[in-house]
Amino acid sequence: MKVGLDVMGGDFAPKSTISGAIQAQKEFPEDDQIVLIGPEEVILQQLEEHGGDPDAFKIEHSPDVIEMGEHPTKALAKKPGSSIAHGFQLLKNGHIDAFASAGNSGAMMVGAIYSVNTIQGIIRPTSSVIVPKENGKISILLDVGTNPDAKPDVLYQFGLLGSIYAQYVYHIENPRVGLLNIGTEAEKGNLLYQSAYQLMKNSEDFNFVGNMEGRDVFKDKIDVIVCDGFTGNVILKLLESVYRMLVKRGLRDSYIDSMNYENYGGTPLLGINSTVLMGHGISNDVAIKNMILLTREVHNVQLSKKIKQALLNFSTNKD
Amino acid sequence: MKVGLDVMGGDFAPKSTISGAIQAQKEFPEDDQIVLIGPEEVILQQLEEHGGDPDAFKIEHSPDVIEMGEHPTKALAKKPGSSIAHGFQLLKNGHIDAFASAGNSGAMMVGAIYSVNTIQGIIRPTSSVIVPKENGKISILLDVGTNPDAKPDVLYQFGLLGSIYAQYVYHIENPRVGLLNIGTEAEKGNLLYQSAYQLMKNSEDFNFVGNMEGRDVFKDKIDVIVCDGFTGNVILKLLESVYRMLVKRGLRDSYIDSMNYENYGGTPLLGINSTVLMGHGISNDVAIKNMILLTREVHNVQLSKKIKQALLNFSTNKD
Repeated sequence: MKVGLDVMGGDFAPKSTISGAIQAQKEFPEDDQIVLIGPEEVILQQLEEHGGDPDAFKIEHSPDVIEMGEHPTKALAKKPGSSIAHGFQLLKNGHIDAFASAGNSGAMMVGAIYSVNTIQGIIRPTSSVIVPKENGKISILLDVGTNPDAKPDVLYQFGLLGSIYAQYVYHIENPRVGLLNIGTEAEKGNLLYQSAYQLMKNSEDFNFVGNMEGRDVFKDKIDVIVCDGFTGNVILKLLESVYRMLVKRGLRDSYIDSMNYENYGGTPLLGINSTVLMGHGISNDVAIKNMILLTREVHNVQLSKKIKQALLNFSTNKD
Repeated sequence: MKVGLDVMGGDFAPKSTISGAIQAQKEFPEDDQIVLIGPEEVILQQLEEHGGDPDAFKIEHSPDVIEMGEHPTKALAKKPGSSIAHGFQLLKNGHIDAFASAGNSGAMMVGAIYSVNTIQGIIRPTSSVIVPKENGKISILLDVGTNPDAKPDVLYQFGLLGSIYAQYVYHIENPRVGLLNIGTEAEKGNLLYQSAYQLMKNSEDFNFVGNMEGRDVFKDKIDVIVCDGFTGNVILKLLESVYRMLVKRGLRDSYIDSMNYENYGGTPLLGINSTVLMGHGISNDVAIKNMILLTREVHNVQLSKKIKQALLNFSTNKD
């Protein structure tokens, strides 16, 4: 299989991406390949600088770059020669099996929808983040910013998408899905969460275990934490800043270290017809390496196909 | 002045409340008094147990208790002899100047509105929490759960209420008000936050400095963090659990210790015609003591009157 990497994606690209790709390639089986997508001269120069073997990779030349601040739709239309636009073209045509980037996440989202499309039945694709628990296990928090204005039925689908992701990629059996809320009782929260609770409470699509609170995040009560993208993004950035603050103050142990985003390699875009991974903008080489390895894993477990199958049952249950 | 204390309010009441009252009383000037509201026999017994002088306090007998899980409106109607209902009666009739409780916060909210009413022009009263910054200063985060379904104009008023609170009680000059969001640009966030930004951007009622992110919470960029009560409550509980997790793991220093809720004594209900303080349900004696001292301070700086005055200018600006 072939993983396409946006060489120009991320705040520390192309150094971080090429260095990460070289590290990931060493863990790839012989039949699998990393396709480096970006300006050829930059790629060759960076490979040389980091002691990478150009023959170990496939290089796809794309001269342009979509910057972090650019408007996703406009940038994709204006820059067909950008690494992101080119990556999605390769994905669509089957020249790569999966595409990963730590670049403009809006452009990744729009590019994915335009090129490989949303899985039929999915209202809104979503992105997630891994939250480590104190006991060494992890939970998946979603959505983390892709859908700041989610509706109840969208939150319901996040429960399904997160559940399948947890099961197939993180090998959590029958994942416990919790709705993030401001109290455990059914009537707690705002209208959005009250309605979502009603949809979820008798779910046959996933193992809904009820409302959870901000204070439960580090405990092993829940495997999939469902919330809207506004709340999720605030939590994500708050937890990141807690981690950075603790490291800065020298307050760390193995659990605090497990909060380092570098370990988790980003998030698949859940609910689209292919494998697309989005990394953190501040990804360093370790994070990029882990993003590439996660991309391969998400493709290998056929996550997208598993979601499609679940959606067939899902539709039957609903109608 | 007289501060009324709900002796039965909080998970550790009446031990915590009586012990906290005894400690606070030692810091009260001679003319000021703490009025203990609850079952007389319980109060006298607890005073004896904690070595408190009954003559140092006024005791207001109220036999009933509103429990934490009870429905606020129903409980207040059914239990006129409860410490919360009785406290608001005393406040309304001027027998006490301020009322504080770590009990059922819903009942405190409803009781306040029914007894002393919202300040004219205030759409929704709000509650806040203190977030310590790494540099030793504090910021005020509001709303933290009173209004899980806030509208843009309600968020706007939170900016004003938080600003006045920061200025008069925490002596922060011209407080910087930030809107919590998922990006700093004006168009970021969901519809609620996009609309609130438009209302705030040219505010003459407070010093709006723009959007802030979850990652800015510990930095000294903002003095008043405005968000809806759903998001605020999630943040509040998450930060509390971060603090508890760090203490449990032995990862602490003076900054982490400053996150201890005990130091801050709860929150005034902002936007009502009197001084009403709500403490954390898990308040121990130190938290209760600080709640009583904060109640006295909020009354003394005439916070409610300052808000009324601001509202007069506010209305002029708007019409």
